[in-house]
Amino acid sequence: MSKEAISFHKKLQGKIFVGSKIDKITEKNLQLIYTPGVATVCNEIFKNRKTRYQLTAKGNNVAIITDGTRILGLGDIGPDAALPVMEGKSVLYRKYGNISAFPICLDTKDKDKIIETVKAISPVFGAINLEDIESPKVLDISKVLEEELDIPVFHDDRHGTSVVVLAALLNSLVLVKKKMAEVKIVIVGAGSAGYGIGNLLYFAGCKNIIVLDSKGAIYKGREESMNKYKDEIAEFTNREAKGHIDDVIAGADVFIGVSGIKNLLKSEMIKKMSQNPIVFALTNPDPEINPVLAKKAGAKIVATGSFSYENKVNNALVFPYLMRAILDLKIQKITLDTLYAVSVAIAKTIPKNKLKEDNIIPEIGNKSLQKRITNAIK
Amino acid sequence: MSKEAISFHKKLQGKIFVGSKIDKITEKNLQLIYTPGVATVCNEIFKNRKTRYQLTAKGNNVAIITDGTRILGLGDIGPDAALPVMEGKSVLYRKYGNISAFPICLDTKDKDKIIETVKAISPVFGAINLEDIESPKVLDISKVLEEELDIPVFHDDRHGTSVVVLAALLNSLVLVKKKMAEVKIVIVGAGSAGYGIGNLLYFAGCKNIIVLDSKGAIYKGREESMNKYKDEIAEFTNREAKGHIDDVIAGADVFIGVSGIKNLLKSEMIKKMSQNPIVFALTNPDPEINPVLAKKAGAKIVATGSFSYENKVNNALVFPYLMRAILDLKIQKITLDTLYAVSVAIAKTIPKNKLKEDNIIPEIGNKSLQKRITNAIK
Repeated sequence: MSKEAISFHKKLQGKIFVGSKIDKITEKNLQLIYTPGVATVCNEIFKNRKTRYQLTAKGNNVAIITDGTRILGLGDIGPDAALPVMEGKSVLYRKYGNISAFPICLDTKDKDKIIETVKAISPVFGAINLEDIESPKVLDISKVLEEELDIPVFHDDRHGTSVVVLAALLNSLVLVKKKMAEVKIVIVGAGSAGYGIGNLLYFAGCKNIIVLDSKGAIYKGREESMNKYKDEIAEFTNREAKGHIDDVIAGADVFIGVSGIKNLLKSEMIKKMSQNPIVFALTNPDPEINPVLAKKAGAKIVATGSFSYENKVNNALVFPYLMRAILDLKIQKITLDTLYAVSVAIAKTIPKNKLKEDNIIPEIGNKSLQKRITNAIK
Repeated sequence: MSKEAISFHKKLQGKIFVGSKIDKITEKNLQLIYTPGVATVCNEIFKNRKTRYQLTAKGNNVAIITDGTRILGLGDIGPDAALPVMEGKSVLYRKYGNISAFPICLDTKDKDKIIETVKAISPVFGAINLEDIESPKVLDISKVLEEELDIPVFHDDRHGTSVVVLAALLNSLVLVKKKMAEVKIVIVGAGSAGYGIGNLLYFAGCKNIIVLDSKGAIYKGREESMNKYKDEIAEFTNREAKGHIDDVIAGADVFIGVSGIKNLLKSEMIKKMSQNPIVFALTNPDPEINPVLAKKAGAKIVATGSFSYENKVNNALVFPYLMRAILDLKIQKITLDTLYAVSVAIAKTIPKNKLKEDNIIPEIGNKSLQKRITNAIK
């Protein structure tokens, strides 16, 4: 796989390109698209700013913004090494959302500079996609940009991941005949994904969530390594539990791994979980546990974020379609209501009679996804 | 023309798009272009930064950077209204240079913020094209970026315009049988274009150049409205002349208008010029004089920057091909040597026997341009 990926990329020299919608340049259309005709178009936008959505590509342009600090589970590999992932996202945006997504990999890790840069380049884009920027910095960035930009800010690691997780969980709970309000869920990872998932699952009615970071369970009053987002998590999750995964996994119905740590979940831990345990080991490229091992240890339903296994709980299922809907419906702010509705819509693409332990979530190319997602939030 | 340009743009809703080089997404190639396979590609670049040119689109990506302060002859119309021109450039970059050029219209006019922004977004690009930013600010920006970035900075208004003007002038002088070292040239406009043209014509051997700005002829010791770039111009041009165009046009062999002022040149002024006067009225969308009027007033050779008339002295003839050569040859700095060589190469695309008063410069789509330009600088 590794060698093949390298040679595939070498052959392509980049997975994306900027293309022209005008097939043939003639003397006539050159005068329209360039000088002198284009001056009229500029003047029209100058007089009436709204027309920029009709007269330019802005309305379908998305900036994929990263500083390369949290690329997949690889960590801080910088803006140069981040580009292949961002190009991959752009390919999926084009393929499934018919969107022009351009990667902007930033040569700065400074929060204020990132905010300034995104604001500076925003006129060309119809929406911003924040991607693989370290937490909690990215949550601050996202908040400021949401307030100060006149275009929507989609934070895929938070928004997209939470949606695909909830969708998969809704279907999984049907299979194991458990209720959202009654299950115990352990989320390992308190970055953007953990924060987003925690918030959305709570919004969806889950009353027993424990979120862990590298210091263990997050609880109200913990002193070590907290921040305002973990404080927020502590408000609506875990009231008593302390300690690490070993200490809190007993009796859990659901494990959700967004930890960035390969092989974090051990077979013995799954054995301590409740009946018919659900394991979402979502770290990429290497999950918290190999799915085969997880099954062997007794997990009833297993999902990963990788396209190499069954049950692909990957935000690629969400971002192209949700962004298409956001652009088309001119949605300015992405709320928990929006995310919940999209999760339900995705879950429902699997008909009841097709719902199985190895089929809890649709394939990325599912033809009904777009219509369902757009209808869910319009 | 105006109405047609608007409806043409409305139909397209943007002249460009970001496309995928992968036609069909399969389960197999999804694992290569996205997760898990792409992680190997990221790691490869992380280990060896050079490979980013082979493994990503960087090497063929150009950022077209503007702040919207000096769009065509329309002036400061802002980043939103600037976008149609930048998309037009992108179309030409794709069509004639096979280049992915993405417009970045900046929501800031601040020099330092522009510099910071371009530096921040540079990892994704193989070169920068500065476009339609007001002078002298843009000359400062260009200088800093040239020093601090590890990718080439092409300043089209300066570099591109100077090349196309020199190419057209070389051929025009052959037709009127005059020598570069002997002609008197009046350039109206001392922004990026005037500065670039002045520098390149001097480099090409012209000894009698007068550059005018809105305050009149620039000379050493002038006190009003000078800056370091005008000081530089004053060093190698005009030693005596003062006053406005009326006062300096007498006896001139060549008029070059990059003034931004429609109908600046009057018939009576052409009548005061030397024998067989050459008039390049290059302001867009409306030239310094209507070409028909200029001819009637006695101009031997007339050119404009518009695609509506004969002799299209427009930098579109230069930037796609020169940028292709810059990217392919990995040229880091654009020097006067480079620009001169390209001018000569472009001039030579018109065979001696085809050289006529209304055919001093090749058409933008001329099939031999790329090869000639690349060969000229490699």
